[in-house]
Order: sequence, then C-alpha cells, then structure tokens
Amino acid sequence: MKAEIITIGDEILIGQIVDTNSAWLSEQLNLIGIEVYQITSVHDSREHILKAIGEASKNADIVLITGGLGPTKDDITKATLCEYFNTKLVLNEQVLSWVKDILEKRGIKISELNRNQAMVPECCTVIPNGAGTAPCMWFEKNNTIFVSMPGVPFEMMHITENEILPRLKKTGKTESIYHKTVLTYGLPESVLALTIEAWEDALPPFIKLAYLPGNIVVKLRLSAYGTDHEFLKAEVEKQISALKNIIPEYIFGFDNDTMAGIIGEKLTSLGCTLSVAESCTGGNIAHFITSNPGASVYFTGSVVAYSNKIKRQVLDVKAESLEKYGAVSEQVAREMAAGVKKRMGTDYGVSTTGIAGPDGGTEEKPVGTVWIAVAGKHETIAKKFNFRQNRERNILRSTQTALNLLRSLIIKENQ
Amino acid sequence: MKAEIITIGDEILIGQIVDTNSAWLSEQLNLIGIEVYQITSVHDSREHILKAIGEASKNADIVLITGGLGPTKDDITKATLCEYFNTKLVLNEQVLSWVKDILEKRGIKISELNRNQAMVPECCTVIPNGAGTAPCMWFEKNNTIFVSMPGVPFEMMHITENEILPRLKKTGKTESIYHKTVLTYGLPESVLALTIEAWEDALPPFIKLAYLPGNIVVKLRLSAYGTDHEFLKAEVEKQISALKNIIPEYIFGFDNDTMAGIIGEKLTSLGCTLSVAESCTGGNIAHFITSNPGASVYFTGSVVAYSNKIKRQVLDVKAESLEKYGAVSEQVAREMAAGVKKRMGTDYGVSTTGIAGPDGGTEEKPVGTVWIAVAGKHETIAKKFNFRQNRERNILRSTQTALNLLRSLIIKENQ
Repeated sequence: MKAEIITIGDEILIGQIVDTNSAWLSEQLNLIGIEVYQITSVHDSREHILKAIGEASKNADIVLITGGLGPTKDDITKATLCEYFNTKLVLNEQVLSWVKDILEKRGIKISELNRNQAMVPECCTVIPNGAGTAPCMWFEKNNTIFVSMPGVPFEMMHITENEILPRLKKTGKTESIYHKTVLTYGLPESVLALTIEAWEDALPPFIKLAYLPGNIVVKLRLSAYGTDHEFLKAEVEKQISALKNIIPEYIFGFDNDTMAGIIGEKLTSLGCTLSVAESCTGGNIAHFITSNPGASVYFTGSVVAYSNKIKRQVLDVKAESLEKYGAVSEQVAREMAAGVKKRMGTDYGVSTTGIAGPDGGTEEKPVGTVWIAVAGKHETIAKKFNFRQNRERNILRSTQTALNLLRSLIIKENQ
Repeated sequence: MKAEIITIGDEILIGQIVDTNSAWLSEQLNLIGIEVYQITSVHDSREHILKAIGEASKNADIVLITGGLGPTKDDITKATLCEYFNTKLVLNEQVLSWVKDILEKRGIKISELNRNQAMVPECCTVIPNGAGTAPCMWFEKNNTIFVSMPGVPFEMMHITENEILPRLKKTGKTESIYHKTVLTYGLPESVLALTIEAWEDALPPFIKLAYLPGNIVVKLRLSAYGTDHEFLKAEVEKQISALKNIIPEYIFGFDNDTMAGIIGEKLTSLGCTLSVAESCTGGNIAHFITSNPGASVYFTGSVVAYSNKIKRQVLDVKAESLEKYGAVSEQVAREMAAGVKKRMGTDYGVSTTGIAGPDGGTEEKPVGTVWIAVAGKHETIAKKFNFRQNRERNILRSTQTALNLLRSLIIKENQ
C-alpha cells in the first residue's frame, strides 16, 4: 500500500514552522508496512488543495491530509473537501456535543466559530478527536482512502495512534517492512562505501541499503521488504552480523542510540565513573553526557577551564607545561585529563584543549587544532586533530571525537 | 517571483529525518520577497524526481532542489538532472581540485567515488560548496532557474547564504522588503499580544507583524513592503522605538542576537568577567556562552558539579546546607554562585541546581523544580522555577532563564 501526505498551511511555506507532522506520520506508516510516496506542503488555498489531493489520489491508496481545520477564516480545508467529494456541510450533533464538552471544561462559552467546527461533509465518517475540538474526517472514493486531520501535532498524533493506524491495519492491505539502522563513527562516507562494497553488492535483492551521512556519524539503514516479518528481521540481523565482522571498530550503536547514551550504558553496567575537563568544547561534552537520564549514576562533573589560571588551579596543570608547550598541546591535554580524574576521584577522565576559532589560530596551530586526552584505569591516550572548520562545527566534532575516544578506551580496558 | 522547493531522499519519506531544510529555505526566500508556492518531498527515484521538477517548473520561477548529491550509489539526482536538461556529465577540473583540497586537509586519499563528485552536467553553472565536497549546480531553462544543492543542512545553508541569495537578488525581480525581528523574553505569547495590542492595531498597513513563538523566546517580526528601502527601514525603526517604551524590560535583542551573545557584548564592554557553577544544566550554560567567539575575554570557566561531593570540594558549598536544605535549594544555589565566583575570581557567578527529570522528583520538589542564583558585584539574587517539562526542555529553559537573570543583574548593576 502506498500513501501520500499533504500538509496544509501558509505558516509552513513562509518557514514560520517546521513540518514535523510529515516525518512522524511517515515513520508510523512505514512501521506498519505502508510506503509513503510523496509529501506535499501547500497553501491555505482552494485551488492548491484541490490540485494536491487530485495529484495524490493518482499514486496513493491512502491520502493523509493535515491542517486547515481551525475555526478561523483562513482555514478552508473542510469547504474544499466538500467540493472535491461533491457533497455539502451538515451539522453533526455528536461533534457539537464534544466541542461543547471540551469548551465547558476549559470554562469557555461556545461561539459561532466553535459551532462551525461541528459542520462536517455529509459523505464522511467522523472520527473522534480525543485531544481537541476539530473533528477528523475519513473519506473513501474509487478505492482510495482520504483522511483529514488537524495540524496541531499533539492532536494529529493522538488521532493517528488511537484511530487511524488501527483502522488502516484492519484493511489487511499493509505490507511487512523491517528497518534497522547501523550507526558508524570514524570513516568518511566515501571510505566507508569502499570498505563495505563487497558486502553491499552481496545483499539480497529484498534488502535495500541507504547511506545517511550526518555531520560526523554515518548511518547505514537496511530495509527489508516482504511478507514474513520474522524472516525479514532474521535476514537483516544476519547481514548486520556480517557487517560487524568487516568494520567492528566503527560501529557504535543502532537506530536511536547516541554516543553519549552508549557510553552511559557501558559505565553504568561496569560501575565506573567519569569526569571531564573541557577547554575548547566549553561545556558541550558535559552537556551531551548529562542529556541522558540517569547520568548522575556515573557522571561526577566537569571543569570548563577556559583560562590557564583555572587549568592550573583547579586541574593541577603544571605552569611549566603551559609555558613550554602552550595550552593546546599533548602535555596539557594529558595533565587536564589526569587532573580532573584525580580531583573528582573517577575511573575515567576526558579532556579537550584546542582552538575553536574564528580567532586564535597560528601557522603552527591553525583554527581547528585540538588535542584530546582520555585517562583510563590503566593508561592515558592522547590524540591531535585538525578539524579546520567553523567554531560551531569544531566544538561539535571535538565533542563527538572525545566521546568516541572515551568509548574506545572503555571497551579496550574492559574486554 | 515564485519558488518551489523539492527535497529528495528516501530518509525523509520513511520519517527518519525531519525536513528542516524546507522551512529554513522558505524563510530565507520570503525575507527577500520570493513567495514559496509548494514544498515537495520525493524519493531517490529517477521517475519521481523528473515528475516533481516538471510539475514545479509549471508554477515557479525558481526551483530549489536539495539532496541526493552524495558520492554513493543511491544518490541519483545528478544523472536525473542530466536527463531533464538533455545534457551529459562532464569532469569539472575546478570541482576536482576542491574535492582534492578538502580531502587532503582531512588526510584522505581521493577515491573513484570522490572523483565522481567532480562530474557535473555540462549545461550547468557550478557554484562553489564552501562547506563540503558535493558541488552546487545552477541551471536556467525557459526563464526558470533551477538550483540543485546538497541536502546536508550545514552545506545547504552555507551555499544559500553565500551564493544563492545574492544571485537571486541580482536578478532584480525581488521586491523591496525590510524585516526586523524583536526578541522578547519573559512574557508568554498570549500575554505579550494583549500588552502590545494597541501598538499592533496602530501599525501602518504596509508593515505586517508576525509572532514567532519559540520554546521560550517570543520573536516579533516586522516586515515592511514597498519600493523605497530607506523609507521602509525608517518606519520600522520608528515602530520599534515605540514598542521599546511599552515593554522595555522584555526586549533583549534583535534579529540574530542570542542571549549569550548579548551578555558577552555587555561583559566585554564593561571589562567584567564571568564564571558558572552548574548542576541540572550539566554544562549547557557554559556551552551557550562559549559558542560565542571571543568568550575567553570574559569567561573564565564553569564547574559542572553533578555530585554533592564536587559541590562541597570544588565550590565550597557547606555540608550543613546540603544536609539541611537539600541540593535543590536556595541556600545551595546561592553558595554555588558565590563559590564559583570566589574560586575563579570573577565579577559575576551564575548557578543552577534542580531536577531535570525524568527521575528524582518528589511531591515537594517535582521534576522541573530549579533554583537559579546570580552573584553580582554588589548583590546575589536567587529565584525558584517550576518548569515541569521533559529533561531536554527543563535543561534548555533553565539555561535560558539563568542567562536572562544574569543579563538583568548586569544591566541593573551597571546603569
């Protein structure tokens, strides 16, 4: 089964809001085996809506429409649907009583605008909106299903989960699809592609591979299409096992995993603790780590030592090291990692010191030069990087790279 | 002038990523007076891309296409564009040398896949991608402009700002529009709207007001449409002066200002310094501050004190205070702010201590309870907040609120 999504609203086309509804709906539909063929965002305009619905109905078995159902004048979806389905608006007593109930609970008296919300196209099936006043409408025409839902994400999600997905599953036309995404770190997309070329070429025809390059992490998504869900799942897992043998050190997680989340899980299960000493990353490593619920179990704290004085006083970096090698040096990175580990009494200590830019670069140490050190239980590793990007990206890359080095050392020391 | 946006990529249609490019592009185009008629997201499929480009060219003077330009096999945009424009791929030496340069800097040897990136449709104008290896391509056919850009947001934004918008402005078909955005903090949208209602109603008809509610900051964008740019600018500035008299304490900046950036400017001009002690914000305040170039002038450092031990040892919080009032208390917030200010020898010290969630809440101190303190040159202020949201939002709101309290105290102490 194929679906198309149409989102209606001027606010999308002037860039005032990001259309998050489409991505959420697409994911939900894919999970029950419905492929989304196209997403189209159109204005609150009669002609434009009619054209979009007409086009979508040519390709799709299901057309999901969100937006334009509010009580104000600029919302014209309902009148336009009447025109498309050659029907008229009629008062629906059930909807009127929901609207009254909801407004009463909010202490609001019903107005003429609210009463209009109870007017629905005569030929549709009205579906309860458990989260707001705008009704959801289900139409069928020439074997195609059309669903019109409110654009407010919270209401749309509530209706989809509770009403639309169960009804679509009941049609019995949904295919089986199994997706799994492999998260890699450390290989640029082109190098990764060459490294796994033979594996990719040997994938069975019902499994598709997609590269999803991010800023630093490259994701590999495997999608298996067929009828037997368990078989598809087993085949994808088999292929992933084979991939793990080719690039074991570059795979750090799957699907919605994050690097910091993976590290948190490892530290929790090992009963180990972590502290951080940041210069150029300026608190971002601590922020990534503490974004994970439960970080207080393993994360003691971080010292953002922007000035050399604080590097000396709080992290016990030697004045001679700062003078002899400079703040951006292997020596200082090592002393920072060891210093924070000792002061906070943790098993692991991570440090960064570098030039995020745009100023502060020299010929010898250009913007983007970063030293990262990880002090572990048995050894301390330190590496130099040249990111040479803008401030924002240098901070992000340094953060991700430091976390990846930490992850590697934790694995190495606890095999 | 009308534009259409086409975003290409299976990852959008399976809901793996939210298409943020379209909203950003729409906003940028609107700002230079180009209306976006439709946004269409399509698969990495030859037929589908051809159909979408054909449809878009019927309505639009400009068709902006993002995605599908990576070096891997699933990216077929370039070959498809050749088909649409009836041309062939040729090696572009200039692109090849960029690609080589970029890879060399990253210490990577050029591969056949990378070399493919230097193959471009013969009839296009190649536009430099200052941020990556995939070239941007500009086509013209039957008075319509077609631009194909990479889908990686960072690269797409860089190319649009530096190359595409200036070129579109040069076509001379864009209207004169003057935009200025007022950044407010501290009033919910509905309260703000009531407070400035009379001012809004008295705006001249050629100035339009849009509310852009964000998570915390509410932005008011004034857009003046006409022919005389200087006149429009003067009128908008006049209206903003009037607005400043109505809500002086809630306006913190304009356009692309950030709260942390504004604070940095103030501290720099005053010659004052800042340090931070973070518990629930976990490094995010330091991250916001150090995202600004030149932060090292006024920012000494931050202590992320996640454990009580570190609060005592590094920030000199009294053991009695922790025991008697708990870590999330006015007393501890004040001691943390004073402690970091003293240890780092700065003029200002900011602290946060709270329950970000999802765990750790109690009836008395539910998730979202946060104490924030700012120690200034003459006084220390402390305030309690109940954000009661999810972890991510509690961290963000605590960060922004702490920065706003700091901003207020800096202004008060230096009038």
